[in-house]
Amino acid sequence: MTTEATSQTGRQRPLVEQNLPVFQTIPGHYDQTPFFLTQDMLGGQPIEIAGGEISDKVGKPVAAPHTHEVPEIYVLMSPEAGGAVIEVMADGETHELVSPAVMLIPAGTVHCFVTKKAEPGSYCLGVLLTGGTSVTAG
Amino acid sequence: MTTEATSQTGRQRPLVEQNLPVFQTIPGHYDQTPFFLTQDMLGGQPIEIAGGEISDKVGKPVAAPHTHEVPEIYVLMSPEAGGAVIEVMADGETHELVSPAVMLIPAGTVHCFVTKKAEPGSYCLGVLLTGGTSVTAG
Repeated sequence: MTTEATSQTGRQRPLVEQNLPVFQTIPGHYDQTPFFLTQDMLGGQPIEIAGGEISDKVGKPVAAPHTHEVPEIYVLMSPEAGGAVIEVMADGETHELVSPAVMLIPAGTVHCFVTKKAEPGSYCLGVLLTGGTSVTAG
Repeated sequence: MTTEATSQTGRQRPLVEQNLPVFQTIPGHYDQTPFFLTQDMLGGQPIEIAGGEISDKVGKPVAAPHTHEVPEIYVLMSPEAGGAVIEVMADGETHELVSPAVMLIPAGTVHCFVTKKAEPGSYCLGVLLTGGTSVTAG
């Protein structure tokens, strides 16, 4: 799916991926999860990026409590500050994130979230710090 | 700025950062750059995340051509597919990215971009793969 490859000199070249999102199966998630970056894109990078726009997700959890073998960073953004609010459960404690906000979910932490508020153009991304190993099973 | 610390047992705990974005100086950028994640947040992670909403950036480059010592991944998103278009210059070649899209800017690549189209709620993020070393100078 990548439009350019490493050059013959070995110097890495810019790579573009546009067939997005791709949908993959993540343990604990009710539906297939949209990904903007997976291990088989851009030559293989040390992160994966899941998630997307959440204005249609208010009150609808996307996953049951689950864990990953790698750390995850939630990134909550909205056009206006305070435009998005999510409630994250992590190891039994609840954290309210008001956009813009980031949160570290350490490897092995039982976690999930539900969107409480999301103006149009609000996003919650999960950046998985895979270090190069895919955590997806799809 | 972090609301929780590593527990006394050494097991990493969830961490939240909400005083965002922070603005830092990046070589080549015309203004201070908004960051959602820097090395001094969330206990120090191997990535930094810059950028933001771009619907007011059409036709306005945010930086002159510049390089980083680490790879960068552009993440272009919009509520509707095709809602955002950026033109990326990388090592003298031009790449048109149509949302959703990701692009790898290898370390040392001379690069910059200009927004050509961006519906409200469009974002361009630059995820810097620092591996733990800050690339900011602010």
